[in-house]
Amino acid sequence: MKTEKTPGEGVITRVPFPASKKIYVKGTLHNIEVAMREIELTDTRIYGKTGMTESNAPVTVYDTSGPYTDPNIEIDVRKGLNPLRKSWIVNRGDVEQLDVISSDYGLQRQLDKSLDALRFTCNNKPFRAKKGQNVSQLHYAKKGIVTAEMEYIAIRENQRIAEQIEQLDSKNRFLAHQHAGESFGANTPKTWITPEFVREEVASGRAVIPSNINHPESEPMIIGRNFLVKINANIGNSAVTSSIEEEVEKAVWACRWGADTIMDLSTGKNIHETREWIIRNSPVPIGTVPIYQALEKVNGKAEDLTWELFRDTLIEQAEQGVDYFTIHAGVLLRYIPLTAKRVTGIVSRGGSIMAKWCLAHHKENFLYTHFEEICEIMKAYDVAFSLGDGLRPGSIADANDAAQFSELETLGELTKIAWKHDVQTIIEGPGHVPMHMIKDNMEKQLKHCHEAPFYTLGPLTMDIAPGYDHITSAIGAAMIGWFGTAMLCYVTPKEHLGLPNKKDVKDGVITYKIAAHAADLAKGHPGAQYRDNALSKARFEFRWEDQFNLALDPDTAKEFHDETLPAEGAKVAHFCSMCGPNFCSMKITQDVRNYAEENGLLEQDVLHEGMQKKALEFADKGSEIYL
Amino acid sequence: MKTEKTPGEGVITRVPFPASKKIYVKGTLHNIEVAMREIELTDTRIYGKTGMTESNAPVTVYDTSGPYTDPNIEIDVRKGLNPLRKSWIVNRGDVEQLDVISSDYGLQRQLDKSLDALRFTCNNKPFRAKKGQNVSQLHYAKKGIVTAEMEYIAIRENQRIAEQIEQLDSKNRFLAHQHAGESFGANTPKTWITPEFVREEVASGRAVIPSNINHPESEPMIIGRNFLVKINANIGNSAVTSSIEEEVEKAVWACRWGADTIMDLSTGKNIHETREWIIRNSPVPIGTVPIYQALEKVNGKAEDLTWELFRDTLIEQAEQGVDYFTIHAGVLLRYIPLTAKRVTGIVSRGGSIMAKWCLAHHKENFLYTHFEEICEIMKAYDVAFSLGDGLRPGSIADANDAAQFSELETLGELTKIAWKHDVQTIIEGPGHVPMHMIKDNMEKQLKHCHEAPFYTLGPLTMDIAPGYDHITSAIGAAMIGWFGTAMLCYVTPKEHLGLPNKKDVKDGVITYKIAAHAADLAKGHPGAQYRDNALSKARFEFRWEDQFNLALDPDTAKEFHDETLPAEGAKVAHFCSMCGPNFCSMKITQDVRNYAEENGLLEQDVLHEGMQKKALEFADKGSEIYL
Repeated sequence: MKTEKTPGEGVITRVPFPASKKIYVKGTLHNIEVAMREIELTDTRIYGKTGMTESNAPVTVYDTSGPYTDPNIEIDVRKGLNPLRKSWIVNRGDVEQLDVISSDYGLQRQLDKSLDALRFTCNNKPFRAKKGQNVSQLHYAKKGIVTAEMEYIAIRENQRIAEQIEQLDSKNRFLAHQHAGESFGANTPKTWITPEFVREEVASGRAVIPSNINHPESEPMIIGRNFLVKINANIGNSAVTSSIEEEVEKAVWACRWGADTIMDLSTGKNIHETREWIIRNSPVPIGTVPIYQALEKVNGKAEDLTWELFRDTLIEQAEQGVDYFTIHAGVLLRYIPLTAKRVTGIVSRGGSIMAKWCLAHHKENFLYTHFEEICEIMKAYDVAFSLGDGLRPGSIADANDAAQFSELETLGELTKIAWKHDVQTIIEGPGHVPMHMIKDNMEKQLKHCHEAPFYTLGPLTMDIAPGYDHITSAIGAAMIGWFGTAMLCYVTPKEHLGLPNKKDVKDGVITYKIAAHAADLAKGHPGAQYRDNALSKARFEFRWEDQFNLALDPDTAKEFHDETLPAEGAKVAHFCSMCGPNFCSMKITQDVRNYAEENGLLEQDVLHEGMQKKALEFADKGSEIYL
Repeated sequence: MKTEKTPGEGVITRVPFPASKKIYVKGTLHNIEVAMREIELTDTRIYGKTGMTESNAPVTVYDTSGPYTDPNIEIDVRKGLNPLRKSWIVNRGDVEQLDVISSDYGLQRQLDKSLDALRFTCNNKPFRAKKGQNVSQLHYAKKGIVTAEMEYIAIRENQRIAEQIEQLDSKNRFLAHQHAGESFGANTPKTWITPEFVREEVASGRAVIPSNINHPESEPMIIGRNFLVKINANIGNSAVTSSIEEEVEKAVWACRWGADTIMDLSTGKNIHETREWIIRNSPVPIGTVPIYQALEKVNGKAEDLTWELFRDTLIEQAEQGVDYFTIHAGVLLRYIPLTAKRVTGIVSRGGSIMAKWCLAHHKENFLYTHFEEICEIMKAYDVAFSLGDGLRPGSIADANDAAQFSELETLGELTKIAWKHDVQTIIEGPGHVPMHMIKDNMEKQLKHCHEAPFYTLGPLTMDIAPGYDHITSAIGAAMIGWFGTAMLCYVTPKEHLGLPNKKDVKDGVITYKIAAHAADLAKGHPGAQYRDNALSKARFEFRWEDQFNLALDPDTAKEFHDETLPAEGAKVAHFCSMCGPNFCSMKITQDVRNYAEENGLLEQDVLHEGMQKKALEFADKGSEIYL
């Protein structure tokens, strides 16, 4: 079928996850198929009874990797992914396809022959809301409409865990009842998240579904604190490094490991074309910071920025399909001096650009003064606001100061305005914050921003570990996720030092999946513990391959194990290299259970009582030893 | 001087930290010299004023690397480190030097000619308390004696930060007053920790100074929640891998990166000899789990263990100089059945050994029944108890269960008994615990164990990230450290998968320095923020080399930076590879400050008011835009 070399061929990672297959769960309200990943498990060998086994049900997990991990789907990066949402969007009857793109700059790039080699050529006619229509998910939700996106999300968030636990009932009472069950409460519903619940959360503004009508390739996902905690990965070229193919692969790579959204923060040349490639090939929503590109257009001179130029950039990007825009509309002129005595001033790029513009003109931030016009654009494409924290602290010394919290209050005002236009809105947060000051951020955000979803960068809990800021920030991210932050923007090991390479992107994503999962467990998200229980059971039973396959990063788990004990035999051995063959605590525990069983002490309900009684008798005698 | 190749030559890492020198601060009560590391900083170039600079005072930091990073000290691993505490110990007049070692096994190894090549040969005559004497720091503290160890610790914990801030006053008002000062409160004392405060904390049992009289090479350190949070690194060979030289270097390597204590968990052959090498060359206290070696002596058969054999092992190790023993005396017979329904049973090696022994004999744990005899041994050498949590949870499903907390209560009982004997005691804690269940652990420990220091393994906040458990556990460790845990036992990336290599040890140690520092910041430890402020100031001023040198891991910070911008010139450039030359937020912020200054808006106290006024005037006009 492929007749010539396609861009990115060989560069794009497509290998499926080990022992995993892609499954598609059908909707009931809409004609949809929700992609998930199912991990097959091996059987448990019954200890001490050679040849006897018990099967373990497969585990379904939330999957952000898109069609890339489905070997049955042919992918050509020049054609982009299948636009699964296109019919949903068109069938709602409120959009029109444009003959030409509406942005001057976009048109100029399109007509520039010298860019032909770089250009993504398929499907470049964008959609826009018909005049007077609002195509945002918030608008539909408020009208009581449960969209296909909402049903998709409900099914996706449930991960089939309720069903899986029911399956387990007959087969594996131990795991299901004893442990997994406990965290769900007595009356575990078959499905926790309903499509109607999704609609309600969106309607209230507590959740956001980033879903530009021009990015029909994206698989619907939701950002809100009553759902699984999401993570974002930043990618982007710069004046110094990178190529288009590398950027597309970075996006695919980030999604593979668990990025729920991607922010394209490119600042180099050809960012218009790079963005098109990324969007067309991205199964997750894409965010940008449009002021970065606007600044490129005025050759880096912040004072030369104008509202008209910025407006054109918004339209250019909205028609490409960007799902959310970071807009630094809260950097008000009167807040800027509050940063002058800081240790690290203004560290947000967008924030510093706007600050420079404000001071140069001694005028209020044009993003603030034109905010309602921005809303008009957003709702015509369903682009969501990510209201930027341009004054976030860049060091522990600057955390939770007047500049930061003043801006936060303004973001709250702007949220109300966005909601008036039915534009979906999330709020960006810090930054560098020590642990004891994190909760205050969440509480102030909920209060000032009326429960709009919070989206934080870390926060980094210290300044002294450059090279390890994925870790310093994962601590803060896990905590703020627990407290209610809906999405965590990853930090890579290269933070403060340089641009992340592929390894850094993966390290950042996995570290943030860890932070998000820690938060899901702590929040008691129904089913969050299911995968932990399955992995721990595999670990205890020395099902090494299952332990690897259930891990967030199967490759690294396997590689680390094989470093010390590479033989295939070792992966079914009842010991590991940490303790050696004679000395494994898990082996000994198994012996303990065996012993208890042989002595009739392991009957389901007798066990506790019987042993307790014997033990207490003993304790009565033993208690003479110490009073 | 060296006439032949010494064991470990070339293997032991001795390179000093960049831009750092070893300094020695003298005591006033005792004739002591407290080792610290001083990091020299470059000058700040005044922005926009070519050639004008301002100096930055050097930063002193807590240093666990020992004499290895002092190029003026000659080190020969065959002779061991200088026994700096020997004269302190001898001069107290309560110890005697033995002609022969007291342990049968130790003697047997000493007389075995076949081990000569392996043996550490210097100074093998151990000390012991004179009959009827108690040589523990707790004993001295209760008697009101401020030992040399206590004064050393007071000076060490202060890190000269109070003095440094005073120095900064004249030179750098901005940093000292504006930021660092704030976290200390208005009346920052010159010294926060006094020798008398150290004594009081030890006397109360809230802090422990691990300091076996047979490990005079160790630099005194303290474990208690009113001091800097400490970290422990586990090393150890096993039946499968490693050599003696590698183990010594692992200890040196772990101390280099910040390990405050080392636990030698060797389980292979020649562990007696390996331990001797490690202790003689270790500048930090050494902990062990004596039951591991006892089990080796009975060929791995837990049921063959006896009190007599264990007792001999304790004496053997105490006379070698082990500073604290993990003793699993809380694994009571009646608690064992509480683990049978767990997902991961008993995961502590010591715990599972004792459980097996208890069941095999249907007798109470001999560590419990002989606890007072153990105390008698401990106080004759000042070995501290680390009361092991043999029933700690090995999975999220098993966290905070009846088995775990029952044992904790028993550890509390045992603490009282240890204190009756003036034996220093810390309490070990979990394990696998989700974030929302961590605080309960700390509160129960404080309550049941009478505020004895808590020493936790992580806790790991999830089960699904094998290969990244240094991170899953750093989240839990930072939190429990903040809540009051005094020492954090590191977890390496290889946890659950295999034995850590040198890279893993470093990754584990740095990750735990991060957790401990996050906790120190959150607890408001006086001076904890000083290094952060210095690093952030360097970062903001593009003093790249200073940023690297102040980092927990200067090598990695520099390496990551150089990956993208390797040229030497880039390290003094006013931009970095993340944004490129035209687009750096820090550069723009500097421009903002410049602009403000040029317009007379940066006068120290006028700034805020002046700009606020101008801005508010503007806002009055602008407020028409939005109501």
